[in-house]
This record gives sequence, C-alpha cells and structure tokens, in this order.
Amino acid sequence: MREVYLDHASTTPPHPAALEATTRLAREAYADPSRLYGRARTARIELDRARATTAQVIGARPEEIVFTSGGTESCNLAVIGGARAALAARKKAKVVVSTVEHTAVLTAARMLEAEGFEVVELPVDGAATVSLDALRDAVAGGAALVSVQHANQEVGTIQPVAEAARIAKEAGALVHTDACMTVGHIPVRAGQLGVDLLSASAHKSYGPKGTGFLWVRRGVRVRPTLPGDDRERNRRAGMENLPAIAGMAAALEARDGEITEEAPRLRALTERIRTELPRRVEDLVVHGAPIEAMGESA
Amino acid sequence: MREVYLDHASTTPPHPAALEATTRLAREAYADPSRLYGRARTARIELDRARATTAQVIGARPEEIVFTSGGTESCNLAVIGGARAALAARKKAKVVVSTVEHTAVLTAARMLEAEGFEVVELPVDGAATVSLDALRDAVAGGAALVSVQHANQEVGTIQPVAEAARIAKEAGALVHTDACMTVGHIPVRAGQLGVDLLSASAHKSYGPKGTGFLWVRRGVRVRPTLPGDDRERNRRAGMENLPAIAGMAAALEARDGEITEEAPRLRALTERIRTELPRRVEDLVVHGAPIEAMGESA
Repeated sequence: MREVYLDHASTTPPHPAALEATTRLAREAYADPSRLYGRARTARIELDRARATTAQVIGARPEEIVFTSGGTESCNLAVIGGARAALAARKKAKVVVSTVEHTAVLTAARMLEAEGFEVVELPVDGAATVSLDALRDAVAGGAALVSVQHANQEVGTIQPVAEAARIAKEAGALVHTDACMTVGHIPVRAGQLGVDLLSASAHKSYGPKGTGFLWVRRGVRVRPTLPGDDRERNRRAGMENLPAIAGMAAALEARDGEITEEAPRLRALTERIRTELPRRVEDLVVHGAPIEAMGESA
Repeated sequence: MREVYLDHASTTPPHPAALEATTRLAREAYADPSRLYGRARTARIELDRARATTAQVIGARPEEIVFTSGGTESCNLAVIGGARAALAARKKAKVVVSTVEHTAVLTAARMLEAEGFEVVELPVDGAATVSLDALRDAVAGGAALVSVQHANQEVGTIQPVAEAARIAKEAGALVHTDACMTVGHIPVRAGQLGVDLLSASAHKSYGPKGTGFLWVRRGVRVRPTLPGDDRERNRRAGMENLPAIAGMAAALEARDGEITEEAPRLRALTERIRTELPRRVEDLVVHGAPIEAMGESA
C-alpha cells in the first residue's frame, strides 16, 4: 500500500539537506563551540553559519536569533520571558493571548497567571480568526505582552498578525507571534510583521527534532526561562545542539527556494480535497478559513 | 599532527552506536509518537524502547525517566520544579546547594531566590568535596530541596552523595544529584544513591547533543519548567526528540558494557598525566581529589 503522509502540521519528514547537515556535524563538529581549540573553532564557525542562514531566511539579523530546543521552548521564552521582562520595565501585569493558541502559549500564560498576571483570552470567529475588536478592548489600559499565532495549528487560518501587532504596540505591549506553522511553509519576514518576538520549530519546517528558534527584535529583552550558562547572549543556557541547528538552517535554506514553486501544487491538492471529500462523505463540516484566505504570507 | 581530544568533561565524541540510532530514526521514525497511525506507532515503540533502555542502565523504572533537552534543562527541572513542588507540599522555602555545582544548578537556585526561597551554598574543602557538616547545619530547620552533584565538572571529585542524601532526607528535603559528569563514565545506579532526582546529559555520555534525562523517583513530584502539552507524564512538554533520545539510549547501553573494561586504561592514563606533568611543568598545582578517590561509583 502506498503511504500518503498528511500530518505535516504535527511534524514533517526531515529534508534530505537537513539529514545530511545533522549527520555530518554530529561526526565532525561535536566539540563545544565556546572553547578555543581547533575542533571547537570548527563548531563555532558552523554555529555562526547556521545562525546567519536562519536569520537571512526570515529577514533578520544573526544576533536576533536565539536557538532553543523547539517550538514549545521558543513560545515559553517569548511569553514568559517577554512578560517578565516587560513587567520589570513597569508594564501592566496583563497578558493577552488568542484562545486558539498552541498549548505551549496557553500553558505559559497560565503559569504567568499563577505569578499574578491578569490573562485575557481573545475569542475567534467561525473561521478561527482572532477578534481584533476584542484585542483593542483587552489592551486599552495597557499590557505587558500580546501573543497571536501566525497560523492556526488545527485549521490553518492565517491570523491578522500585522494588524494585531499595530493595536498591541500602540498600547505599549510586547508582541509575540507563534510562527511554528508558517516558517518553512510560506515566506515569513519577521521584521515586516510588526512583532517583537517570533517563535519557530525546526521539525515542523522539514528540519530535525530537538531545535527551533526565537527571533527577538533588536533592543527587545526577554528573561531566560532556561537559566544556566551565558550562551545565546544570556538568553538561553545549555550546550548548543549544533547538529540539529545546522540541520534546521539547511532545511530553512532549501525550503526557501522550494516554497514558491510548491505553492500551486499544494493549493491544487487542497482544492481537490475540499471539493472531493464533501462529495464522498455525508454531512461533512469544514472548519477553518475559506481557501481564498489560505497561504497568504507576511 | 595527531589530535588528542581531552575535553570529555565538556562534551564527548558521539558513540558510533549513537550516531547510527540517531540517523536511522531521523529517517524512519519522524512521526509524532502521540498519534495513532502506523508511522506514529513505530515512533512510539522506539520511544518506549529507548526509555526502557535508559531506565535499565541506571537501574530505574521506565516511567521514572523524563526526557529533556539536556543537562541544563534536567537540572532546571529538578531544582526549580522540585523546590516548587516541595513548597506546595508545605516544605520550608529553603534550597541548599553546594558552591561547586554546575551553573545550571546555581542559576536555578538564584531564580528560586528571586521567588522568595532562602538559598544556602555549602562550602567545599581543598579537594572540592562538599562539607557534610555545613549541610547538617543548613537543613537543621527543614528545607525544600538539597542539590549535591555526583562528580565535579572541573576537577572530577566524586561527592559523598549517599551521605548527603541521608542527611537531607532526615530533614525532609527532596534530594537532587547532578550526574551529568558520571552517567556513561562510571556505573550509576539511581536508586542506590538515596536521592529523589538525578540529572544526566546525553552529549557528556557519548550520546548526541540536544537531549538528556531527569530520573524522578516514583512518587516524587516536580512542577514542569517547560510547560505546554501533556507529554512525559505532564512533566515536560514539546515533541519528543526521538532520534537523539534513541541515540542517547544506544550510547548508554554501549557504554554500560565498556565502562568496566575501560576503567583500568583511563586510570593508568590519569596516573601518567599526574606523574609526568609535574616533572615537566614547574610549580604545577593539582586541583581536585587524590587519584585514590577517583572513579568510585554508587
């Protein structure tokens, strides 16, 4: 039987370029990139290269990239680390998230609630689109942080992140977007979304398991949520997972060239499923945005 | 020039068995182990197998193993997650750590201090051995958590963990030992050390970067420090890094068979360095324990 894998929103098969880079660096560049001997310098050079590639693909600066253990940790660092830093900068102890965020964001918000933050969950409409009116009301008196996903993990709706960011920034809040569902699938330019923080997961973007990144706009501060040594400019401790990081960079670079040419094929497949399934399955209900709204990008 | 790599306390070259397992599973078992289709079931079976192997090597039960992103996260989860759980169980808001712990433990303790915990740092003697008298004084009025490393990361001293655990348990405290320097190098039996929590790092034990584990004795509770979904029995969120986890298990299993036969060779090399270096370098000061005290195990 031919296998058709359709669970890419959960995790993707690794790109051949990612497998190659990960395997090669696990063998060749195992040394600690913070040391000063030859093999360690090799690791440092490869780490710098992966950071530059990752930054370039999303239109960012290398020093704005914080490598993490994956999307959950990226969202944790953004929401918890961002809100705590904003509170220290005398912002209101209030966090606003959409009700359809990934559990990594929702649970982080609940952890902040236990610390004394007020948490507001924004409702969505029938297509899972976040209500901007509700956001406007929620941030009216100021807020520490607003988190609105780039695309929904269940039904694929692209959220109005740029508009949400404008509203949140006017209220003085930090803005995070969870882009785990879009990086590697549609073009994402971090700076153009108007947000301060952007989370990504490698394994949802044809990269390896066990890594991801948080983009932190220059000048924006986050408190570390994984404290320890001074790696990643004091924003994330622990030995860099260089093989996986290099695999992620290789996947992002490869996907950057493939996304545009793949889009018409994926759109045609989506249209076919949306047309054919209701013909064959009775009383089918389609959740999410109409197809015209899918696949837009920043 | 022949390369002699001597920085194994920082990170180890991956074992061939680890490289093989990691590469194979990255290709074959990329699906989410929490799903129900065939490829996902394969991932679940491999994850269960790796957990069973990891547990078996340290003499533990599979359900006591929490896979993390590495040693730093394991220590964070143990110290922060353990202390918060102990506080919720009405223990005294006091944490006792040795002054020579890894930064992952020391920084976690400082984070607890900012939350209101009293933190006591235990002094060490000239061989970096933790003072048990100071521990006795520190826990006299009760404590939430005591953290004493299994072996020191700079000078190799094996700490009196079993004695420290006895003292701490008598005072009602949870006991954590950071075994990142010993797992994969000397035999470690978690249950026999008398501790409740034991941290390990894969890449310091001939495994891949990007994973590690925390052993949590059955019945002991920790509060998650990486909140999100309900993986790892609600103790650690985020997609399991199965390729690295399987690589770690393969390395641990391989090392388990190699440790005993390798010990005399490593002891002879250590003795040679300790004898020859002072003959060739003037005014050399040797830090750490005398060689007779090295390489002991639980």
